Amino acid sequence: MHMYDIIEKKKNGAVLSTDEINFVIQGYTDGTIPDYQMSALLMAICLQNMTVEETFALTKAMIESGETIDLSGIEGVKVDKHSTGGVGDTTSLVLGPLVASLGVPFAKMSGRGLGHTGGTLDKLESIPGLCIDMSKEQFIDNTNAIKIAICGQTGEVTPADKKIYALRDATATVNHKGLIASSIMSKKIAVGADALVLDVKVGSGAFMKTLEAATELSQLMVVLGEQFKRKTVAVITDMSEPLGRAVGNSVEVIEAIDTLQNKGPKDLKELVVVLAEKLLLLAGAYDNPEDARQGIEGALSDGSALSKFKEMVELQGGDGSYLDDTSKFELSPAFELKSDAAGYVQKIDALKVGEVAKNLGAGRETKESILDLGAGIYLHKKIGDRVEIGDVLATLYTKKDDVDTAKADLLQAYTIGTEKQDGSALILKVVDHVE
Amino acid sequence: MHMYDIIEKKKNGAVLSTDEINFVIQGYTDGTIPDYQMSALLMAICLQNMTVEETFALTKAMIESGETIDLSGIEGVKVDKHSTGGVGDTTSLVLGPLVASLGVPFAKMSGRGLGHTGGTLDKLESIPGLCIDMSKEQFIDNTNAIKIAICGQTGEVTPADKKIYALRDATATVNHKGLIASSIMSKKIAVGADALVLDVKVGSGAFMKTLEAATELSQLMVVLGEQFKRKTVAVITDMSEPLGRAVGNSVEVIEAIDTLQNKGPKDLKELVVVLAEKLLLLAGAYDNPEDARQGIEGALSDGSALSKFKEMVELQGGDGSYLDDTSKFELSPAFELKSDAAGYVQKIDALKVGEVAKNLGAGRETKESILDLGAGIYLHKKIGDRVEIGDVLATLYTKKDDVDTAKADLLQAYTIGTEKQDGSALILKVVDHVE
Repeated sequence: MHMYDIIEKKKNGAVLSTDEINFVIQGYTDGTIPDYQMSALLMAICLQNMTVEETFALTKAMIESGETIDLSGIEGVKVDKHSTGGVGDTTSLVLGPLVASLGVPFAKMSGRGLGHTGGTLDKLESIPGLCIDMSKEQFIDNTNAIKIAICGQTGEVTPADKKIYALRDATATVNHKGLIASSIMSKKIAVGADALVLDVKVGSGAFMKTLEAATELSQLMVVLGEQFKRKTVAVITDMSEPLGRAVGNSVEVIEAIDTLQNKGPKDLKELVVVLAEKLLLLAGAYDNPEDARQGIEGALSDGSALSKFKEMVELQGGDGSYLDDTSKFELSPAFELKSDAAGYVQKIDALKVGEVAKNLGAGRETKESILDLGAGIYLHKKIGDRVEIGDVLATLYTKKDDVDTAKADLLQAYTIGTEKQDGSALILKVVDHVE
Repeated sequence: MHMYDIIEKKKNGAVLSTDEINFVIQGYTDGTIPDYQMSALLMAICLQNMTVEETFALTKAMIESGETIDLSGIEGVKVDKHSTGGVGDTTSLVLGPLVASLGVPFAKMSGRGLGHTGGTLDKLESIPGLCIDMSKEQFIDNTNAIKIAICGQTGEVTPADKKIYALRDATATVNHKGLIASSIMSKKIAVGADALVLDVKVGSGAFMKTLEAATELSQLMVVLGEQFKRKTVAVITDMSEPLGRAVGNSVEVIEAIDTLQNKGPKDLKELVVVLAEKLLLLAGAYDNPEDARQGIEGALSDGSALSKFKEMVELQGGDGSYLDDTSKFELSPAFELKSDAAGYVQKIDALKVGEVAKNLGAGRETKESILDLGAGIYLHKKIGDRVEIGDVLATLYTKKDDVDTAKADLLQAYTIGTEKQDGSALILKVVDHVE
C-alpha cells in the first residue's frame, strides 16, 4: 500500500477503504508518512469529502492510535459533554455538579489546549489547593463516591488526532465536517463515557457558519456516537455573543458558582438546563423532559447543585470556602471600558472578545504560556441592553501594561445601534437521532 | 501576507493575485514556506483550478526564482522543442540537425532528469569524446558558427519548479493542466528561445489521457507562450506504442542517424517532419508548408541533415566516424524476446516498455544511478505487424542478470490478437493559435 496512491484516489473523489485509512493513520502517527503527504490528503478530503463509513473508520483509527480509558469500574451510566469552541463557556463547571447532584455520574477527563481562556482544568485551578492530577483508580473511586470527578488526561489519548490537528491548523484544513467530527468523537470515545451531549456552536465566529452546516456536523457526530454504542445528543447554539457575562478563569468560576445557586446569567442557565435535561434522559435518571426539568430546577434552587460542586472541590483538595464567598477569588487589576455611543447593543463579536481575553493574559498563545488566572473580562452590557455615552460596557481584569489597546479592541467587538433588537434564540436545534 | 490565508483562499475556489503567487513561490524557494503548506496548496489548485492569469503569474514567478539565459547573442530566430514524456523519443536528435541544416538556429539547453531512458544529453554521450559541458559564450559561438549546439544547463534555472516538481511527484499533484503548463513553459522561457514547438503526448501512458485534455493543455501552453512573446505551436501525438523502434541511449542515437539519412522508422520520420515544418515556418525560413516540406525532404535525402549532425558532434569534441559507421556503437549483450502467440500486434504499452528499458539499465532510478548507455530495447514488431509463434518481437540489450523478468515484462507490453488493426494516426492535432 502506498500513500501516493491513497492521495491520488481521494483526489479523484473515490472512497477510501478501512485498510487504507488505517494505513494512513498508523503511518502518520509513527512518522513513516511525512507531513507534506498528509496535508495533501487532508486538502483532498476537504474538497472531495468523506462518506460516513470513511469518517467512522478514521475515528476508529485515531482512537486506536493511542490509549483508551476504561471507565467500566464506575457504576451507572457515565455522561460527558463537549463544546465546539465557545467563548466564555463556563458550562461544564455548572453542568457537571448539577447532573451529579441528581445521581448521574459525570466523569470528565480534560486536556488543557490552547484557547481564548484556559480550559476547564485551568479554571478549576483558580480554587486554591484543588488538584486535577489523579490516577485512573482515584478518578474512578471519586466518581463512585460522589458521582463527579474532573481531572487531567492520563496517558496519551488519540496521538494521531493531536498530530493531525496541528497540521490542519497550519494548512487551512480545519474546517471540514468529517475531520471535525472524527477529531471530537475520537477523543470523547477514547475516554469512555456512555452518553455524550455535544454543544455545537454556530455563527460567524464559530467553525460552523450556518445552521445548515452545524446541523450536518451534529448529525454526523450523533451517527458516529451511535456506531460506537454511545448515546449522543447534539444541541446547536447561537454564538452571536459570548455565553454568560464572564470570559476568563477566576471570573468564569465565580459565574459558575452563581449559576449553580440560580443567580447566574439567563443565557448560561438556559443552555445548562437543556444540556442537563438531555444527559439526565440519556442516563435514564428521568423518564420524561418535564420531570427532568423539575429535578434540575430543584437542584439549582435548593442548593444541592452547589453543594455537589463544593464536595468535589474539597475531595480534590481545594478550599471550599471560596464557594461560600466568591469575593475571596483574587482578580487582576480592573479597568472599565465605557461606551462612546448611545443606543442598543446589537451584537458582540464573541471571537474578538475571546482574543482580547487572551491578550489580557487569560488564555495561552503557545503551550508554554503562563496563564494569569485572575485576568479576564466581565460584560456588563449584552445584546438588547440600552447604553448611554459613558456607561460601563465591560470590566477588563489584567496585569498587562497595554490596557488601551485591549479596550479599543473590545470596543470594536460591540455593535451599538439605534434600534433595539432582541437577541436571537440561544438554542437553535436539538439533534438526537438520525434516520 | 500569510500562506495559511492563501491556502484557504484557493481551498474556497477564489482566484489568487499575482502578489500572492509571488509570495508563495519566493517563500517556498527560500524555504520559509514548508513543504506541508505547499502540498496543501498544490492539492487545492488541482481540485479548484487556476485561471490563465494565475497560471501566467505562476510561470513568471518560477522563471524569476532563478537565472535566465540570454540568447540574444545568437543571430536569427532561435528555436527549441519540448516533449511531454515520450518513450523511445529520439526526436530532438533528428529535429535539431534537420532545422539547423536549413539555416534555423537550434540552441538547446537540456537537463538530465530521471526517466525511462537517459535524456538528450546522455544519448549524445554515447558518442565517444562528445562534450555537453560548455560556457554560455561557447554555446552562443557554436550556434552562430554552425546553427546548432546542445549542452547541459548552466547555472540554476527555475529552482522553484525543480522543488515544486519533486513535491508534486510525492503528493499525487502532478496531473494538473496549469501545473504542468507552468512547469514546462517556465523552463523553456527561462532558457530563451524565440520559437518553440511542443510535442504533447496523449494516451493511457501519458500525462494526458484524452485528446480533449491534451488539447486543453496545448491551448494553455500556446497562450502562455504568446503572453511571454514566444511563438509557440503544440503538436498532439498518439502514444499507443513507443515512437520508432529503439528505446535506450546508443540504440536511439543509431536510430536518429538512420532517420537523418531517410532510413529511419516511418512514425519517427512523420513526427520529425511535422515538428520541423512548424519550426521552419515559425522562424520564417519558409513562407508556406509546401516549401518547408520540400526543404525538409531535400535535407534528409541529400545528406545535409546528417552532415549537420556530424558537424555538431565534431565541434563538441565527439568522434564523427561513429556517424559514418553505426556498428561502432558498443551495445550491451543482446537477448531475443520471442512471441508465444500468433496474430497481429494490436497495442504496445509504451510506459511498460519504458519501465523495462529502465530496468535493463537504460534509465535512472535515482539521481545517483549510473546509466548503461549500451542498454535498451529494439522493437522488431510494431502495431499492425503479423507475428507467428517463435518470431522475435524485440531484442533486449543489457548487462543485468535477470533478463527473464525483463522479457516477461516486455511480453506483457504486447497485445497480440487475431485481427489486424491499423495503428491510429500519429499526429492527432496541431494547436497553433488560441482565440
